[in-house]
Amino acid sequence: MTGRVGVWLVGARGSVATSAVCGAAALRAGLAAPVGCVSELPDIARARLPSYAELVFGGHDVTGCPLDKRAEQLVEGGVLPRSVVTGVRADLRAAEAEIRPGYDGTDGASQRAVAAALAADLRDFAARHALARLVVVNVAATERRLDPHPATGSLDALESALDGAAAVLPPSALYAYAAFSAGFPFVDFTPSAAVGSPALAQLAAARRLPWAGNDGKTGETLIKSALAPVFADRALRVRSWAGTNLLGGGDGANLADPAAAAAKLASKSRVLSSVLGEQVVEPLHIDYVPDLGDWKTAWDHVSFEGFLGVRMSLQFTWQGCDSALAAPLVLDLARLVARAHEIGEVGPVGAFGFFFKDPAGTAEQRLAAQYEALRGWAARAGTLPEDPP
Amino acid sequence: MTGRVGVWLVGARGSVATSAVCGAAALRAGLAAPVGCVSELPDIARARLPSYAELVFGGHDVTGCPLDKRAEQLVEGGVLPRSVVTGVRADLRAAEAEIRPGYDGTDGASQRAVAAALAADLRDFAARHALARLVVVNVAATERRLDPHPATGSLDALESALDGAAAVLPPSALYAYAAFSAGFPFVDFTPSAAVGSPALAQLAAARRLPWAGNDGKTGETLIKSALAPVFADRALRVRSWAGTNLLGGGDGANLADPAAAAAKLASKSRVLSSVLGEQVVEPLHIDYVPDLGDWKTAWDHVSFEGFLGVRMSLQFTWQGCDSALAAPLVLDLARLVARAHEIGEVGPVGAFGFFFKDPAGTAEQRLAAQYEALRGWAARAGTLPEDPP
Amino acid sequence: MTGRVGVWLVGARGSVATSAVCGAAALRAGLAAPVGCVSELPDIARARLPSYAELVFGGHDVTGCPLDKRAEQLVEGGVLPRSVVTGVRADLRAAEAEIRPGYDGTDGASQRAVAAALAADLRDFAARHALARLVVVNVAATERRLDPHPATGSLDALESALDGAAAVLPPSALYAYAAFSAGFPFVDFTPSAAVGSPALAQLAAARRLPWAGNDGKTGETLIKSALAPVFADRALRVRSWAGTNLLGGGDGANLADPAAAAAKLASKSRVLSSVLGEQVVEPLHIDYVPDLGDWKTAWDHVSFEGFLGVRMSLQFTWQGCDSALAAPLVLDLARLVARAHEIGEVGPVGAFGFFFKDPAGTAEQRLAAQYEALRGWAARAGTLPEDPP
Amino acid sequence: MTGRVGVWLVGARGSVATSAVCGAAALRAGLAAPVGCVSELPDIARARLPSYAELVFGGHDVTGCPLDKRAEQLVEGGVLPRSVVTGVRADLRAAEAEIRPGYDGTDGASQRAVAAALAADLRDFAARHALARLVVVNVAATERRLDPHPATGSLDALESALDGAAAVLPPSALYAYAAFSAGFPFVDFTPSAAVGSPALAQLAAARRLPWAGNDGKTGETLIKSALAPVFADRALRVRSWAGTNLLGGGDGANLADPAAAAAKLASKSRVLSSVLGEQVVEPLHIDYVPDLGDWKTAWDHVSFEGFLGVRMSLQFTWQGCDSALAAPLVLDLARLVARAHEIGEVGPVGAFGFFFKDPAGTAEQRLAAQYEALRGWAARAGTLPEDPP
Repeated sequence: MTGRVGVWLVGARGSVATSAVCGAAALRAGLAAPVGCVSELPDIARARLPSYAELVFGGHDVTGCPLDKRAEQLVEGGVLPRSVVTGVRADLRAAEAEIRPGYDGTDGASQRAVAAALAADLRDFAARHALARLVVVNVAATERRLDPHPATGSLDALESALDGAAAVLPPSALYAYAAFSAGFPFVDFTPSAAVGSPALAQLAAARRLPWAGNDGKTGETLIKSALAPVFADRALRVRSWAGTNLLGGGDGANLADPAAAAAKLASKSRVLSSVLGEQVVEPLHIDYVPDLGDWKTAWDHVSFEGFLGVRMSLQFTWQGCDSALAAPLVLDLARLVARAHEIGEVGPVGAFGFFFKDPAGTAEQRLAAQYEALRGWAARAGTLPEDPP
Repeated sequence: MTGRVGVWLVGARGSVATSAVCGAAALRAGLAAPVGCVSELPDIARARLPSYAELVFGGHDVTGCPLDKRAEQLVEGGVLPRSVVTGVRADLRAAEAEIRPGYDGTDGASQRAVAAALAADLRDFAARHALARLVVVNVAATERRLDPHPATGSLDALESALDGAAAVLPPSALYAYAAFSAGFPFVDFTPSAAVGSPALAQLAAARRLPWAGNDGKTGETLIKSALAPVFADRALRVRSWAGTNLLGGGDGANLADPAAAAAKLASKSRVLSSVLGEQVVEPLHIDYVPDLGDWKTAWDHVSFEGFLGVRMSLQFTWQGCDSALAAPLVLDLARLVARAHEIGEVGPVGAFGFFFKDPAGTAEQRLAAQYEALRGWAARAGTLPEDPP
Repeated sequence: MTGRVGVWLVGARGSVATSAVCGAAALRAGLAAPVGCVSELPDIARARLPSYAELVFGGHDVTGCPLDKRAEQLVEGGVLPRSVVTGVRADLRAAEAEIRPGYDGTDGASQRAVAAALAADLRDFAARHALARLVVVNVAATERRLDPHPATGSLDALESALDGAAAVLPPSALYAYAAFSAGFPFVDFTPSAAVGSPALAQLAAARRLPWAGNDGKTGETLIKSALAPVFADRALRVRSWAGTNLLGGGDGANLADPAAAAAKLASKSRVLSSVLGEQVVEPLHIDYVPDLGDWKTAWDHVSFEGFLGVRMSLQFTWQGCDSALAAPLVLDLARLVARAHEIGEVGPVGAFGFFFKDPAGTAEQRLAAQYEALRGWAARAGTLPEDPP
Repeated sequence: MTGRVGVWLVGARGSVATSAVCGAAALRAGLAAPVGCVSELPDIARARLPSYAELVFGGHDVTGCPLDKRAEQLVEGGVLPRSVVTGVRADLRAAEAEIRPGYDGTDGASQRAVAAALAADLRDFAARHALARLVVVNVAATERRLDPHPATGSLDALESALDGAAAVLPPSALYAYAAFSAGFPFVDFTPSAAVGSPALAQLAAARRLPWAGNDGKTGETLIKSALAPVFADRALRVRSWAGTNLLGGGDGANLADPAAAAAKLASKSRVLSSVLGEQVVEPLHIDYVPDLGDWKTAWDHVSFEGFLGVRMSLQFTWQGCDSALAAPLVLDLARLVARAHEIGEVGPVGAFGFFFKDPAGTAEQRLAAQYEALRGWAARAGTLPEDPP
């Protein structure tokens, strides 16, 4: 790929964003190996992706805690190594200087005006850094799930409604609107509304832009999407699949709100019915356990039936660090979507479903098949020229 | 497929064989749904496999407990439903009538003579039932692992050595020798020696026979082969993968012998290095816990490293009924190998690696990829005529 | 103890009651060893308890499924061995003949009249069998938790209110009222209201009757009450204790009703604050998973802090058969409460807190201390004469 | 208690010793709360124990890595907080200055001479610091288990043998010999030989000294000793109890030696037979998993039988930091044994069995009962004067 690539993080001062900025700088400086970086696997890297050194970071946020202080908190929480943070302070300051005030839905201005301001931030960033590409990635807190506004049913209706005084779009969707309007691709790493409406999808198509989402697959659902096919392919009948998720940190606090959790739970539960081809009993909980900090623990219990009706079970416990799992995938997606834009992809890129709980552009939920799709995409992208006409 | 197909079980009075005979009869009689039967999945069944009704059972065994008594024990142990066993008593008696005395290495006769007698049993069975095909499946207890006899280095050397008085082949390999000599394909569902020598492989090739093995993948390793690719494809670095297997029943008692366990442990540990591309610390135990009966419990603990060195872990506990997991796969393999024979496959069928811990004929250890290989084989076999010239 | 002892089961056709009746008969007939029977431990048996052979069973129920059919279902579900049920059919029929129609709150009659009818059933049973003692044990489904009626604040108020037309007491409490009125002790093995009001407690005291409750401790809470003291006694600081309970069967279906689950969850969560001396984050779920049948699986995750702030964790998974855990305790309690009555105990017997999640008559929640209290009680009871004046 | 108390650590530069020295200093300086400190619980502190401020540290070691460097490693490993280590550097240096070369069995000198030198170190330390008491605590690596030398059968035989040229005692026992000879009590926090012979016990008795051991109970066995009584007191029949221990760090490397592990496994397996009153199938493994560092993970699987033969199970996973669990107990024992010495206790103090896998001086293995014994001891000690005549 040719030229520098902007990564614009919505929620730029959160744990995931901070970890991503630190990590990219550490990789550039040779302070860390690319563990957890899918786009560095030989099969994927062949797609001619922008290098970590070519990435430039900026973003929107509604909170004020600067990146270096946030990074310090992540060191205390065991998410980031002290040596890395010490070595990349200049990069943190550079990214901090590119963070602009975000939108959380409470702004008094009309959404038309807000969108214009957000888009101006993006264009200004792209211009000042002479970026070849810019990818907007939503890593903000999960929104409350609300019924979509009727105007999101089509782009025309949306455009009319945005001229009115009332809010039409939730923040995630307004960010996507601003990105597409300004000519930039968008990645939704959360289960928020974002591009999930006809109006937004039409806008992306009209501007010939690729996008990817929704909801990064980093833990319980990752494992589910690898294990559910075992039962399907071995003709074993899953009777129930129960899951409990214990989360601390900001995400846990946010998901303690049932309306926010509803969005997450819905996207988590799509895997099973898709892979197993039938509905199973699937109790699923997200609990806020503050002392876990950035860590999450998930326990799943699968009850299944085998030959001649014998009942058996599988349990797993996943203990992961949310930000450390998500951050490299954010960088992967920024690199991949930039390249997708470069080679002319438009609309939801189904081949990037590997990264998402609720993948747009594909019905495939089986992890291994998703990886094959990604690998195939990378192979094809690798045969195309850099900066094609 | 045309004509009746013999399934000759080495270890015909064991739990797996008894469950397989019961299950085939139950499926034929409509007493059970084909849960656990891979060959009944639409993608696989399209290969034009023999139906369950076309299977005829016989076998060798060194113990005397008749099948109906063994089935009763399996009812007590919760492996087989009473209603099924009651409904298939005639089938059990029919199979029992076709069980011949087996060979456990202690027979006084020369191995040449023993092999001839075993082969005669197979030919006699095939002739009396006018079988179109016969598949020999080894489901006997795991053998002690011994250094291979030098004569197993080539078929010529083996043929000379068999004329001598001393034993050259362990029982599993003598069964394979007898099967191939008599013109029948062979499946090794155990980690025993069987076809695992140049001499036996050469014999199969010379007789234009397909074979499959080794060591049925039914529990811990099944899950391992689905989970290890998650780490590989997400570029996460596995630091250690520890496993403990608690087994009761005959298999547990047998594997309490370290020499027998060695074979099993070796075949269980091939998955990780293959999929992860590097050696990881991998402590692995098999413990004999008699009270578990036919059930086994496996606990695995995976310690892995993510972005910027963060340490995380995954644990799983698998609680399964060994015979109920193995029996349908034995039937699958008999059907598949019969069809492979019919369409002219020769040598180890790598596409059947999906069923094995230590697959012959392929280096692929990733479960999903193995399923795709099997699916592809079935699609191709489905395009070939029944009973091709 | 001298004479026959009646055990009157409220919910007499449920799984627990059926298992208790079967088990007592099996123990009497020598068909089973007293595994799970606390009152047969030498330290407890010394209290001079009635033997299993001296127990006579009857009860109330609102459902019609006869005991022998219910027992058959429990055989299918793996709860009761077929051989036991076959051997005790006469006992099941005898108990079935002593089951009378129960009260579920929907009866049109005044509660005064219902209570009188229930009490008459008890007196009739005692008279016909010439019982020395009778203990009423509530093993009916958990009631929905409702705000207590103001009249339950005192016995006088209750007596006045019962004369009115409106329902004052939930069924569990009306059963307790009937038992006490008729002069019989009461055990609440559920988290229902029952004796949990001043009025009922005053009635028991007035009639000089012992009682015990609430909510049998058979699984997750049993383990919790053994593990929480480890943290307390080792000065380790529990940060959070999360629990998930997967239940099938009637109890699971019943507890899928949030109002019923509320009662259960409240009684389950009393252990921690009592033992740890502080409130911890304690997410707790009960999920209905029908395929588990009579089995329940609980997973608990304890996050704790050690020396110098180091964070550690303990997880446990309990897989138990609810009825098989509860039934022997029901028999234990019937025997113990009969003896308590005989030796003149009045009010809640704190020494029986060992059996309950939410023990009445004691603040002790630590399992080992509860056992010591029970052991001490038994030692003392053992020194008292049979049938003291 | 009156006067300063020396704590002499055998293995003074190991993880446990370093953590203990850091922790005592942190507690003294108010940098940490006494989490994990049993002796600070009100019930135990009433025994009139020396304060943390009164403890003075020294010790023997055979390795050269200084305490501050070792502490730095423990910070990297997440065992010690950086802020604590920074705040107690002076204390680490003071303790480091009191570490003398240790004995690992390879010294050329006669054991008589070695013992004299070790004892001289102790006396010199006590004299220079004007200590009121000194307690020697063995926290060195677990020794290989060897058959005891015949001369350890009696003190007389031992004294004669020590004059010879050949080694008679393993290092742990020679340290105990030196401590007792010099008039100081001894604590064995390891499963090594130490005081476990008639000769050493006689020496302690002759010098009127208390001692405590063996093998600190910090993880899997701690939980086992709390859970095994649940089964015993509920009359549930344990059928098997399997355990797997994954350990990194120095202890893991050391226990990868089967002869060292044998000692550990033996002391770990005493709990069950003692509490359950019968031998159960008990497979038990210790695996060296270097990447776990100072952390250990134990998984236990308990299979048990309940009422009427129903089979159930309990699993637990313990994830703990070995040094953080052991260090506060080392401090507890130093304080308690110093007080035991002061009030005239002689021989193994059974009341301190709460701290050990293989407690000397008591047959009690149930954790709650051990705590009660400790509590009782503390209550009695609290009634005795400080520095009694």
